[in-house]
Parts: sequence; structure tokens; C-alpha cells
Amino acid sequence: MPNNPTAAIIVIGDEILSGRTIDSNVNTIAKFLGALGIDLLEVRMIRDDEAQVVSTVNALRNTHEYVFTTGGIGPTHDDITADCIAKAFGVDISEHPAALKALTDRALKMGWALNDNSRRMARIPHGAELISNPVSAAPGFQIGNVFVMAGVPKIMEAMLEDVVHRLRTGNTVLSRTIKLSYVGESSAADALREINGRYTDLSLGSYPYGLSLDGAFGTQLVVRGQDAERVDAAVNELKAALVSVVEQGKARNPLASFEEITA
Amino acid sequence: MPNNPTAAIIVIGDEILSGRTIDSNVNTIAKFLGALGIDLLEVRMIRDDEAQVVSTVNALRNTHEYVFTTGGIGPTHDDITADCIAKAFGVDISEHPAALKALTDRALKMGWALNDNSRRMARIPHGAELISNPVSAAPGFQIGNVFVMAGVPKIMEAMLEDVVHRLRTGNTVLSRTIKLSYVGESSAADALREINGRYTDLSLGSYPYGLSLDGAFGTQLVVRGQDAERVDAAVNELKAALVSVVEQGKARNPLASFEEITA
Repeated sequence: MPNNPTAAIIVIGDEILSGRTIDSNVNTIAKFLGALGIDLLEVRMIRDDEAQVVSTVNALRNTHEYVFTTGGIGPTHDDITADCIAKAFGVDISEHPAALKALTDRALKMGWALNDNSRRMARIPHGAELISNPVSAAPGFQIGNVFVMAGVPKIMEAMLEDVVHRLRTGNTVLSRTIKLSYVGESSAADALREINGRYTDLSLGSYPYGLSLDGAFGTQLVVRGQDAERVDAAVNELKAALVSVVEQGKARNPLASFEEITA
Repeated sequence: MPNNPTAAIIVIGDEILSGRTIDSNVNTIAKFLGALGIDLLEVRMIRDDEAQVVSTVNALRNTHEYVFTTGGIGPTHDDITADCIAKAFGVDISEHPAALKALTDRALKMGWALNDNSRRMARIPHGAELISNPVSAAPGFQIGNVFVMAGVPKIMEAMLEDVVHRLRTGNTVLSRTIKLSYVGESSAADALREINGRYTDLSLGSYPYGLSLDGAFGTQLVVRGQDAERVDAAVNELKAALVSVVEQGKARNPLASFEEITA
């Protein structure tokens, strides 16, 4: 959408690319950004590889207003994200007093001694601002337009709470969904194309579902845009067009129907 | 791993980046490639945007042995992947006789008339080989080293069956996992780093879990590599080192323990 901030996500971790772990952070961040009117334009998932992390961060931070990274800021030898970010920005990295205090306070509270590995999580690139971690203390950080967060979903979600007030917001996208049941996607394609041709400021999408065991199938038709009146008008035109689509669909399947849903 | 083929995935679809849809294909393809000894090095998720699809395909097909795309090959106006791939390869696109036959046969079998929108799914870039779709007939295709597949997970999975015999396989990666319970990730970091320093041909990873409602937490330690004897030796050393880690961990939490699991 014009003038909205743009964003990219970098998911860092061998465990994602090996298939060992299923990422869930992309969807969480995508919804978070959508609610703020920030347009997520790209996601990259890469390995714990210094050259790849550095080049990906530098490519995306120069082309998007915001970059969010997840993963690789824990205490073990394969947690290389903080060092890679320092390298990407050409700055030094060392223990950050507030980060060390957060880790020390947590260790005291838990009755632990802070070992050298945990202490490693206090190393923060120079010039970065911390992102607080109310779950397990080890902070993320913001440097320039890059937000470096944990990979563990509960920690990442908590960190977003400390990021939200730092972001420029845009116009949020309104979305309305019509569920077209027992009618194939291709039957609605003419109406969608025709309406989208006249509403070029909106995005009309079509998402088939089904192939489920009970035989249910159909298509969800989604109208998205920033202007409520335009979205309403397009939805009304779409509904009018679907009356005849469903009428014809009944010849194939008597269960053919449509209704607006909250998706 | 040296000499293994490398691969990248491109997930194409506004619905992923808006957060409307949660991708599950990346994990399916990652596991599929892992079993074949093909190293997945990168995933990119992008919008249904011609310039972005063309440039991403061209960037990745020149740097990886294989590229897999999902999404955007349906019958509606926002399904632009086939045209983008033709543009990326600089070839024309038109109806493919075998693709049209598959769609016509399916329509006949279902008692449908094939409408122009469905017929659009028979358009295939010149020089491509079809990928069969036993679920809903509309084929994917392979052109050069790029495999273009559907976004609907059940269809994508079925298409992989027709892709597997076209791929050069590599050495599969063996993986063994030790679950360290009620001990923090940082307590095992020294042992991991030390062993990984001597087994540079292996990959040792550490993945914390927990923060669950029942209070269980810990770390899964994963040893990965191609040489079974080396993997076994490293696992044995790791287990030996964990005996004292757990002994110390019991001072913090009497439930501290470790065991090998099938992850």
C-alpha cells in the first residue's frame, strides 16, 4: 500500500532448513505488522552461517524500512547472530551493562550462578538499544532499523511488546472474506478479475480449500484495501456476481452457496 | 555438506506475507530434501509481484542446483507464477497439449465443462516438463533446475512424488538427539563447543524447549553428520560430558537428567 512502511523478516537457524523445527514466528510477526499497517514484503530463512547472515542483513536493511530477525541469540557456540549483526553494521560488540544486569538479576532470583555461556548473551553490538525479554531475561536489541529477537516463540512474542512503540505505523488494511462453498475456484475467476480491473486500489485474492476427508471444498475470496468505502463497494459487487456463479454451480453440486465470514 | 546438491525454496503468495495463511510447505520440502541428501540453504517468501518473482527466481536458480517454488499456479488473475517463470527464463508460454488433456479428462470425469479460467492452468512455459498432479489434474512443471509446484499442501506433496526421481541425491545426514531435561542450555554449552571444535565435520546444535505450563524445560542437543562412526563417537563423548553437567544441574533442580531420544 502506498506510503506504508515496508518490512522484511530474516529467520536464522539450521534447524528450520533441516526440517527439524517448524517456524511459527513468521506468521506471528506478519499479523503483528499487518495490524500496524506495515507491509511485510519478504521473508528469508537462512542458516547459522556468518557470510549468509551478514549479506542478508545488509541486503534487506538497505531496501526496507524495518528488518526483523529471529534466532541465534542464545548461549551456545552456534548462536552467532549478534556477532554477525555487529559485522554487518561494522561496529564492535561487547558486554552491555544493562543486559548483564538483567541476566545477573535473573540468575540471583533463580538461585543460579551466572555461567560464562549465559553471560555471553549480554554481548550487544555497540550503538544498539536493548529489547527487553520478560520471559528469560536475555535481551534482544535494535540497531538502526534492524530488530534482533529470539527464536523461541514465547520469547519472540514478548519482545514484540517492547518493539511496537518504536515503529512508524501505516494505514491498516481492511479485509473481508466471502466463503464460496462447493464451487471451484475457476468459476469465480471471471468475476474476481473483472472487479479487480475496476478496483485497482484493492487486492482481490482467491484461496481454494478442501480436499478434506468429508469432501467439503470451495474457495475463500478476499477483498483487501485501505479505503472502507471502496472495500464495501467491491464486496457488494462481488456478492452480486456470485449469485449467478452459485446458480450455475448448483448444476454441478446442489450444495453450492456463498456467505461472508470473519476469516 | 561437501558435494551434496544445494537447494532453495521460493514461497509465492500475498496470503503468506499478510499472515492470512500459515505456510506448511517449507517444512515438508525441507524434510523431503533432507532424506535425499540435498542441502536446503535458503527459503524466500515473496508476494505475487511479477518483478519480485522474476528477480528471485533468477537470483536463486543461478546459485543453487535446484529451486522449488510453491503457489500461484491456480486459475485466477492473481496466479502469475507460470508467466513469471517464462519471463525469468526468457521463453514463451502457451497451452501445453498434455496439460490441457489432463484438465479436460478430469472435467469429463467430474461431469464439468472446462471453463476458460481452468483452461488457463494448461499454460506452460516452452521447454518445460510437466509435474503430474494426481489430486486435481492441473500440473506443475520443471524448467531447467526450477520445479514449479502448487501451494495447496496436499497437491504440493503429491507433486513431490513426481519430482523425486529427477533429482541427484547426496549423502544423507545422520542425526542423533539427546534430551537434557531440567538443565538450561548454557550449562551444556562448554561441552558442545569443545566437542564441536574437535569434530569440525559434524554439526552440533542446541535447541532449548520449555516455558510450558507444567514448568518442564530443557535443551535438545543434536549431533548431525554424514559419517556414522564420527557421529557415534561425538555422541558418546557428549554423553560422557553430560554426566557431570547433570550432576551439577541436580543442585539447581533434582529432576535434571539426560537421555537419547528419537527426535
